[in-house]
Amino acid sequence: MKKYQVVGIGNAMVDVLSTEEDAFLAENGIQKGIMQLIDMERAVDLYARVGPATEVSGGSAANTIAGIAHLGGRVGYVGKVKDDQLGRIFAHDLRAQGADFDTPPAAVDAAQETGRCIVLVTPDGERSMNTYLGVTEFLAPADIDPAQMAQADWIYLEGYRFDGPDSHAAFAKAVTACKGAGGKVSLTLSDPFCVERHRDAFRKMIDEDVDLLFCNRAELLSMYQTDDFDHALERAAAEVETVACTDSENGAHLMCAGQRRHVPATQVTIRDATGAGDMFAAGFLWGLSEGHDVDACGRMGCIAAGEVISHLGARATTDLKALFRQHGVI
Amino acid sequence: MKKYQVVGIGNAMVDVLSTEEDAFLAENGIQKGIMQLIDMERAVDLYARVGPATEVSGGSAANTIAGIAHLGGRVGYVGKVKDDQLGRIFAHDLRAQGADFDTPPAAVDAAQETGRCIVLVTPDGERSMNTYLGVTEFLAPADIDPAQMAQADWIYLEGYRFDGPDSHAAFAKAVTACKGAGGKVSLTLSDPFCVERHRDAFRKMIDEDVDLLFCNRAELLSMYQTDDFDHALERAAAEVETVACTDSENGAHLMCAGQRRHVPATQVTIRDATGAGDMFAAGFLWGLSEGHDVDACGRMGCIAAGEVISHLGARATTDLKALFRQHGVI
Repeated sequence: MKKYQVVGIGNAMVDVLSTEEDAFLAENGIQKGIMQLIDMERAVDLYARVGPATEVSGGSAANTIAGIAHLGGRVGYVGKVKDDQLGRIFAHDLRAQGADFDTPPAAVDAAQETGRCIVLVTPDGERSMNTYLGVTEFLAPADIDPAQMAQADWIYLEGYRFDGPDSHAAFAKAVTACKGAGGKVSLTLSDPFCVERHRDAFRKMIDEDVDLLFCNRAELLSMYQTDDFDHALERAAAEVETVACTDSENGAHLMCAGQRRHVPATQVTIRDATGAGDMFAAGFLWGLSEGHDVDACGRMGCIAAGEVISHLGARATTDLKALFRQHGVI
Repeated sequence: MKKYQVVGIGNAMVDVLSTEEDAFLAENGIQKGIMQLIDMERAVDLYARVGPATEVSGGSAANTIAGIAHLGGRVGYVGKVKDDQLGRIFAHDLRAQGADFDTPPAAVDAAQETGRCIVLVTPDGERSMNTYLGVTEFLAPADIDPAQMAQADWIYLEGYRFDGPDSHAAFAKAVTACKGAGGKVSLTLSDPFCVERHRDAFRKMIDEDVDLLFCNRAELLSMYQTDDFDHALERAAAEVETVACTDSENGAHLMCAGQRRHVPATQVTIRDATGAGDMFAAGFLWGLSEGHDVDACGRMGCIAAGEVISHLGARATTDLKALFRQHGVI
């Protein structure tokens, strides 16, 4: 048995959650429902405009890893924070959930701070993310421990992490070490505009290395530059063993060994959509690494996603295993 | 019309909220339901033991001031943060709610950091607070602007603020400036053990300066070192114009102009008791400064307290004025 079921690599972030009206988005030039990169100056300016906020640890892959840890999975995480108050909060929350997190923090005198994401939650539950990457942009190959990657059944790579100067080299190092030891590679496309920025690098990785691809409908269409969803799903399935594509209230479409399956979404009232995709991946990956079949994994993903969108914040607040039992999946 | 309906003076804190079982309190020597002062070393050690947490701006009087601002009241706040990430979070949240907050932050090279309170919420909704005061302990007379105090109909003094080397002198300066300009003084006793530590100073201030006293049952009994609640209430009422004493699920007992009144608590499911007293004071003070009678003020206090204990965190998340309307108080 390997030490880790899943090791995630992603952008380490603290979320700053604020509830705002749609008019606020319009006034501040924010496109609804996507992730936008912002610099420190814009982060300070935007923060001054938003209402009272709540701070919770976030980061897409970190949310997924925290979710698997919450389910009792053996997990590790790699991401860059600074040794500042927000960095200590991020590290605490992940470790307290049961994940290993040993990436050396950036020094106190680093020019940038720990990354944060100003998440504007509108009354419909949709979230619009404004990300100041800070030190997390500078994760480098030196931060990747090949021994750790070799000890993972799965590595989970965050698409957002394709932004940043050394990201591709860091991912390549992780993939080589993981695959060399018989591990498998999962990737999430993260965001349609992230796909726009890095389509070639995504394609190359999907063609060559990825065993399990997470995406949503918009990301998959962007990936293959088409409006034909079935076509895009088949193209992805031709390259990777398993595709798990979420589709909002329509649940998830799965492609595995040439077979297409559908899993319905769980019925919940959406309070805050932040973390839906991250928690889908958590449920799915946990199920897979525990030996469940792909249908069960899809259902676990949908149940976990349903839990996280029913409250503010991107990490589980109720017992996911108990929910799985209630739904009869375990 | 004075510029401010209420100016509060208190310990500026960020709350670190974590949900823990009762066994955790026992294992870590934490007395349930009260506030305990801890040093930096203990804060770091305890934080390492608690589960994943959520960070929200807190501070007792700051919660009250934020609540009055939420209701549309004209308010200011005085309290000490450091110019660090937590200090900027505290300042942002209070200003974003509409309160003036101009206390100069402690310098970046100060030995201590912005204060924080590790709040352990048990499944019964009770909160046990572990407070690292940090720089907020050192609020000094120089931080009090007499012109601001003179512009306040009411000042609201936080009992917790009696801890700290210059606290009493700072309060005296505020009281003199406020009363000299025809303003009134309200005080909250904050915590039974805080009363133990500073009984003489509390008594002196109650005898000489206080017009409106906020407390709960345990604090009032501690104040007059008696088990006889009616006696304690009468003793307080002999010294101050109005006493508003909360009594958990029994609502609040009011003494005003020699008359005793009772206001029932609103019926809610308790999720997190943090901020109940603070929000009672917010509703009561807002009502009073808007010219409502003491019964209506008591009901506003109970409704505001009921809102805040129904969710995690010590500040209102739903429209309090709408709740007041629903209950027919305005």
